[in-house]
Amino acid sequence: MVDLRRVKCDPDYWYPVAWSHELRKGKTIATRFAGQPIALVRPQEGTVFALEDRCAHRQVPLSKGRVEGEAVQCCYHGWAYGRSGRCIDVPYLGKGKLPNGVRTYPCREVEGLIFIFPGDPAKAETTPFPQLGSVADPAYKTRRFGEHVNCHYSFMHENLMDMNHQFMHSKQMGKMKPRYLGGADEPRMVEARYSFARVGGKQPWGEALIFGERRDASAKFAHRDVMTIRTVYPYQTLHIRTGDEPPVMDLWIVYVPQDAEHLTCRVFGLLSIRRPKLKGALELAWPLLVGFTNRIFAEDREIVELEQKAWRELGGDRNQEVFPVINALRDLLRRSGIQPETQAQDAEALTEPDRAQAAE
Amino acid sequence: MVDLRRVKCDPDYWYPVAWSHELRKGKTIATRFAGQPIALVRPQEGTVFALEDRCAHRQVPLSKGRVEGEAVQCCYHGWAYGRSGRCIDVPYLGKGKLPNGVRTYPCREVEGLIFIFPGDPAKAETTPFPQLGSVADPAYKTRRFGEHVNCHYSFMHENLMDMNHQFMHSKQMGKMKPRYLGGADEPRMVEARYSFARVGGKQPWGEALIFGERRDASAKFAHRDVMTIRTVYPYQTLHIRTGDEPPVMDLWIVYVPQDAEHLTCRVFGLLSIRRPKLKGALELAWPLLVGFTNRIFAEDREIVELEQKAWRELGGDRNQEVFPVINALRDLLRRSGIQPETQAQDAEALTEPDRAQAAE
Amino acid sequence: MVDLRRVKCDPDYWYPVAWSHELRKGKTIATRFAGQPIALVRPQEGTVFALEDRCAHRQVPLSKGRVEGEAVQCCYHGWAYGRSGRCIDVPYLGKGKLPNGVRTYPCREVEGLIFIFPGDPAKAETTPFPQLGSVADPAYKTRRFGEHVNCHYSFMHENLMDMNHQFMHSKQMGKMKPRYLGGADEPRMVEARYSFARVGGKQPWGEALIFGERRDASAKFAHRDVMTIRTVYPYQTLHIRTGDEPPVMDLWIVYVPQDAEHLTCRVFGLLSIRRPKLKGALELAWPLLVGFTNRIFAEDREIVELEQKAWRELGGDRNQEVFPVINALRDLLRRSGIQPETQAQDAEALTEPDRAQAAE
Repeated sequence: MVDLRRVKCDPDYWYPVAWSHELRKGKTIATRFAGQPIALVRPQEGTVFALEDRCAHRQVPLSKGRVEGEAVQCCYHGWAYGRSGRCIDVPYLGKGKLPNGVRTYPCREVEGLIFIFPGDPAKAETTPFPQLGSVADPAYKTRRFGEHVNCHYSFMHENLMDMNHQFMHSKQMGKMKPRYLGGADEPRMVEARYSFARVGGKQPWGEALIFGERRDASAKFAHRDVMTIRTVYPYQTLHIRTGDEPPVMDLWIVYVPQDAEHLTCRVFGLLSIRRPKLKGALELAWPLLVGFTNRIFAEDREIVELEQKAWRELGGDRNQEVFPVINALRDLLRRSGIQPETQAQDAEALTEPDRAQAAE
Repeated sequence: MVDLRRVKCDPDYWYPVAWSHELRKGKTIATRFAGQPIALVRPQEGTVFALEDRCAHRQVPLSKGRVEGEAVQCCYHGWAYGRSGRCIDVPYLGKGKLPNGVRTYPCREVEGLIFIFPGDPAKAETTPFPQLGSVADPAYKTRRFGEHVNCHYSFMHENLMDMNHQFMHSKQMGKMKPRYLGGADEPRMVEARYSFARVGGKQPWGEALIFGERRDASAKFAHRDVMTIRTVYPYQTLHIRTGDEPPVMDLWIVYVPQDAEHLTCRVFGLLSIRRPKLKGALELAWPLLVGFTNRIFAEDREIVELEQKAWRELGGDRNQEVFPVINALRDLLRRSGIQPETQAQDAEALTEPDRAQAAE
Repeated sequence: MVDLRRVKCDPDYWYPVAWSHELRKGKTIATRFAGQPIALVRPQEGTVFALEDRCAHRQVPLSKGRVEGEAVQCCYHGWAYGRSGRCIDVPYLGKGKLPNGVRTYPCREVEGLIFIFPGDPAKAETTPFPQLGSVADPAYKTRRFGEHVNCHYSFMHENLMDMNHQFMHSKQMGKMKPRYLGGADEPRMVEARYSFARVGGKQPWGEALIFGERRDASAKFAHRDVMTIRTVYPYQTLHIRTGDEPPVMDLWIVYVPQDAEHLTCRVFGLLSIRRPKLKGALELAWPLLVGFTNRIFAEDREIVELEQKAWRELGGDRNQEVFPVINALRDLLRRSGIQPETQAQDAEALTEPDRAQAAE
């Protein structure tokens, strides 16, 4: 069976590559998808666009250049590229002789995130754009977070979906006993549902902010809230609700590969918390919630990076997974991604023609 | 002829992997032997034990876990392992379905050192345990020292046995002329004996502490003490004595490979100094002796790391050894270690079966 | 066609490897040419000499050793080598048994630079020694500069010769429009000539020091000075003159490969400025000129290192060069250097025999 950690993300999806606030008007920044350097450009007027971050001349980053109108000028010899990737000016060359341009990526900006479509551009329009949880709902306040993590994206999916790892967060969360309620296994989706009972420790501040003071050790409140985690390829969501009420917490998250081997990723997460009835309470408590989620995330990051390290040392995946829903998740990630045997062919198919195409 | 720097330590010996004081009761720490991560566990009651430092589930370090009774619980999902390496609990799984466990290593704690037997466990009982010099003799005070050195263990053996390298320590020791008195070359042992005459410089404080004020430049005291260095595979000793008196200094030392290629090592050294008649003098002067030996060792470390660096750059051993006893030592290390041609077979033989065995 | 970035410098030329002031009397220092470690030795009496920087015994650097008379003694066991590379003493070995020595390099010291001839020593005498610009002319004051740059030497040649990259220095220099006046393409030399017109920004202090206040935006002064850049393999020069006057600026520069792959280099540059009529003015203004040239050079270094980084990521040269003189320069560097197919043979031919030869 194919080693899951060698399966690459399918590029024929929309992936975020930057936060909107990182890119100011009239500026360009560098970002990455799976080893491909990308220059994002925000002209003074008009929408953001995305170019291959290598000047066609000498391959230095266009993101070091200067934005002029709707074009970006390379910092080195001043070659200029428009939104289409075409080279539109070489200051010391006649207009008739302009050389080839650079590759472009379909690009959209939604809810503070800049997305690109790194795969076959012809599929961009018809590929469904992800639902971003409750971020657009004014009844919620959203924390945007994201960091680089040195591991394959699959470790992140498995970490979040296997809630037995609450064991690891007992310093932050107190001792919580999870109960697996069941799940779902569909062609493009895997789901796991849990409830929890506190069996020791105090409810942490951060959690109390989200749920109110309900999850204490008394049997009365145990297993009342249901947490649902889904991987809807390539995205992941987690929400918590009580009965038929709207979710108190709603997380949308994706792990975007950074290097060509997909062994590092950048997280883009939207954590939406339902506002309590008391106005301003959530804003007031926000710094506590940020600190709490940061500490949880730091523990998760450490452990998934240790998993990646073990994989490197052992030269492959030696996991001995005993939890059926996690095995279903692993199958989903394996069959939805790009498997090693097909990677070589794709690599050939994707380079030179696209480069030529961009300049036509 | 086989490149000595590609010969690996024979694992069928007892090797120290930690100092006792590094591992407190109810705790676990990470250590290594030749690329294998090892978790040492000291329960509240009972002796130390040694496990492969990778949870059978997802290969994260057990040394990050929690010691409960005579077991260690993985920090991630709480899988627990006993002294035998068997998995004795998965908190969310029925007892009948427990998965495979992890490899164990025979383990002994002697004189402040924790030893393991990294080779074939069946040989552990019958393999002689090393004599640790004069560490147990109350007539001596022992300095325990050890650091990581980025070189193959053979450079360390050769460094200590070739006393012509006193040349390098002339800033610390003054100018000492060594005289080679002869040696021995046996199947498992090589020995070299030297005497010294001071030909310039003052006797350093550190040395005076050990020998008294004898080794001055006058012919009267020259070549009076005899230094004997032995490699008794895989350990090394050095002692200095005058006539038939007990040694004034007695060193036991071993260089434990850290990485899989055996190109880095950790030193474990026991330097025993005979107490002078004046009580308390040695304790008083101890900090001076520590500083002196540290400076000597820093010079040795720098040079052996430069040797290793040259080996890497040249892609192999280009040594042009002219000293017969060092050539005898090199032969001993070569024939006693694991040679490259047999390494591939051993690697296959050692992995999966042991893993399975541990869980039976 | 051969990838230019895989073409190595031809070693059959004189290359500087250190500044004279770096090597004091009675001392030795370490330097490099193309992965070969070199010890430069300056005895108390007599000229500098250059040895392979690896003791024949255990390959540790001779540059860590001690200079005694006209010999250098290895720091480890005291083996000594003379100017010829022959081993002239092993302190613990009879004179009749002295082992092989080390390789030497022809060595000359000129105008504050220490040169070696890293190729075939038989060719050293007959190979023309480079002209070092105006450094010996008292009408000029010379700035010696040089830094390590992480790129193949060819990027440096192309950077300097393509003056369209003035675009990149517009923050330092103001907006300058270059006009290409023509060039030359000979078997061992390529030349490019430019004039400039200021089209925006103020003349910088540093430049004013060199040219006087002439290059303003008025048409009167535009395109008056001619800048000539030449690569006379393997060196490069740049001078600026007005009409038939002697040059106001005269640069001699060379990029010496540091690693075996020639993908890093150390710059040695002699920047000679013609002294103005007012005595002392240049000395007074010197710190400003140093700061100005440092800022320019920092920009150049950043961009060529980005070019090298792109080459590594893409696994080869993807340059799309449109400027004929730069293509002529690339051809010169390609045909004058050592091409990949011949590198393997040369490597064999150059190692062991030379080592043996040195000791005869």
